[in-house]
Amino acid sequence: MGDARRYLQLESEFAMVHGQLDAPRIAYETYGTLNNDKDNVVLIFTGLSASAHVASNREDPSTGWWEDVVGPGKPIDTQRFFAVCVCSLGSFYGSTCPASTNPKTGRSYQLEFPTLTLEDVAHGAKCVVEALGIRRLHSVVGASMGGMSALAYALQYPASVATMLNISAGAHSQPFSIAMRSLQRELVCNDPAWRDGNYPTDAPPLEGMRLARKLGMISYRSAEEWQQRFGRERVTENTQAEARWAFGMDFEVESYLAARAQSFTSAFDANCYLYLSRAMDLFDAADHGGSVQAAMSRLRLDRATVLGVQSDFLFPPSQQRELKEAMEVESIPVNYEILPSIHGHDSFLVDMNRFRPAIAKHFID
Amino acid sequence: MGDARRYLQLESEFAMVHGQLDAPRIAYETYGTLNNDKDNVVLIFTGLSASAHVASNREDPSTGWWEDVVGPGKPIDTQRFFAVCVCSLGSFYGSTCPASTNPKTGRSYQLEFPTLTLEDVAHGAKCVVEALGIRRLHSVVGASMGGMSALAYALQYPASVATMLNISAGAHSQPFSIAMRSLQRELVCNDPAWRDGNYPTDAPPLEGMRLARKLGMISYRSAEEWQQRFGRERVTENTQAEARWAFGMDFEVESYLAARAQSFTSAFDANCYLYLSRAMDLFDAADHGGSVQAAMSRLRLDRATVLGVQSDFLFPPSQQRELKEAMEVESIPVNYEILPSIHGHDSFLVDMNRFRPAIAKHFID
Repeated sequence: MGDARRYLQLESEFAMVHGQLDAPRIAYETYGTLNNDKDNVVLIFTGLSASAHVASNREDPSTGWWEDVVGPGKPIDTQRFFAVCVCSLGSFYGSTCPASTNPKTGRSYQLEFPTLTLEDVAHGAKCVVEALGIRRLHSVVGASMGGMSALAYALQYPASVATMLNISAGAHSQPFSIAMRSLQRELVCNDPAWRDGNYPTDAPPLEGMRLARKLGMISYRSAEEWQQRFGRERVTENTQAEARWAFGMDFEVESYLAARAQSFTSAFDANCYLYLSRAMDLFDAADHGGSVQAAMSRLRLDRATVLGVQSDFLFPPSQQRELKEAMEVESIPVNYEILPSIHGHDSFLVDMNRFRPAIAKHFID
Repeated sequence: MGDARRYLQLESEFAMVHGQLDAPRIAYETYGTLNNDKDNVVLIFTGLSASAHVASNREDPSTGWWEDVVGPGKPIDTQRFFAVCVCSLGSFYGSTCPASTNPKTGRSYQLEFPTLTLEDVAHGAKCVVEALGIRRLHSVVGASMGGMSALAYALQYPASVATMLNISAGAHSQPFSIAMRSLQRELVCNDPAWRDGNYPTDAPPLEGMRLARKLGMISYRSAEEWQQRFGRERVTENTQAEARWAFGMDFEVESYLAARAQSFTSAFDANCYLYLSRAMDLFDAADHGGSVQAAMSRLRLDRATVLGVQSDFLFPPSQQRELKEAMEVESIPVNYEILPSIHGHDSFLVDMNRFRPAIAKHFID
């Protein structure tokens, strides 16, 4: 079995936590070879804005979002493991999402898409895993939203997961992060071009998405990194004159944010963004049993790795510690590490010198 | 001399760092009695959104923004000190500001107001101090923007300041905080009602101000406080139905932000907010001599108190430490304390049980 971008087209109704979809499809990519016992499978969930293209492969040689992590001889070694990266249900990168056509109406779902939960995202991945004839995963892996999706998977299908690698996530989102994301969603919805979700494909709420992305960028990195990177460096007079808004731009950090926000804005559908963002807020492991502890008692993991980052203020180390402690109460051996990266929440995408060995450790057994 | 709301009306031109104003006025309030030697004066600068009404007094019995700090028997004891709180130049609460009428044109300044700096704010305060016949201050005091204004004052008029109390501020703003404030300004300017600054008095950019205020609120408090306060408490169905935007509101923290932002929005002029916010970004003590250290060498303080808060991520403790260390190199005795408050940057307005004694200590000599 080679590298491939695949779609699982479900033929029947897909039950969601808050509704249902007619015959959705789930996009995924696979890396490496499924062995005869089908017990070398690593299922990878993505963050909010990533596709299933976790690494370059024969069909798509472009660099993946975790290029340093997945591949031959890499921490998730595809000479040994069969890695499956699933595009989240509701995401714009190939799975059925609010921008997809609703077969019932012939129009795109937009806000008629049911409220999305990470349990639904996990459910979509389970369909892929079953279609591949896989009974039990070697590992379920995810960072950020992917970490919560991995947890949702292990909570819903406890018998089919042997180990979990959970990165920069938590049992739920803290109010600070909810506030940040809620404001990002409001910035999108506040753009008149959003039109209550009914924007035409060729006239999306770019301005709202741009502002939301700026706020996202601020929350994904750390003050320390920006201090080292920008200090009080000023923009050139040219940049200042080109500022898109009238009250001016003085510092390099402002110009950096503007450039990065601009490049993301056209790549992701606004309604998909809204649904996934809210799904992160809504997720709570405690829904699986009444408390985080009760939820952890459902897991049937042989072991887990829980990683976090000192400078992450979106999912701060206290949240990884909570997960780790609750698992240990249930006698799950946990390898727990808080890395001293300065890149904030995004460190798992950036500080590969620290993350490569920490991830590799999970797969040496 | 009793308690009073006063205005200093300057008769001539006022030179700013980047321009000039014709005969501006500076609003201020005084508390306590100026002694014969005029050496019991405490000059207080405000944060970005506070007025000169630091405490209740005979003329205005309404609660002031630092009611617990200024008054008879309080940390800044008005039975002993003559406290002067100055409304910053450019602020909407009584001093000449972008919303004031430009005597040259008969219209309000709006964006014709020169770029504002905290050096100008300090200069305005100096005019008040001189008009009162005061040669040397016992103390210059400020928190947040007020702390940087106090520093600007001591740097511009070193011989006329005996001690400084500097709270939750720094020698300059870090890139993270600039990014936060820059985005807040962009949210205001992005509101079509802003009209490039030329909005009519009765149709200000309320929506942009509301969004900016929400982001401000997020940066003023701390994740820890919100965790304790809101956890994952849900809004009632009624609140959810009343949400002002279509994509819904699920959590109490969202409802709290919405309510608080709404109440601020109509109280402060948008252009004034933009000017003051940018002045905070532009301030850099290093402009006074080439480096922070060179700037500190200009000070002629007998002593200083530098206070900060563990959970403040807008002006984190590293910034107060930088100030303290640079002052100590110049042989200024510094009382330095980082308080374990959980209320973030706003702690100086909220956690009075910790701040009262820390402030009082500065005035026991």
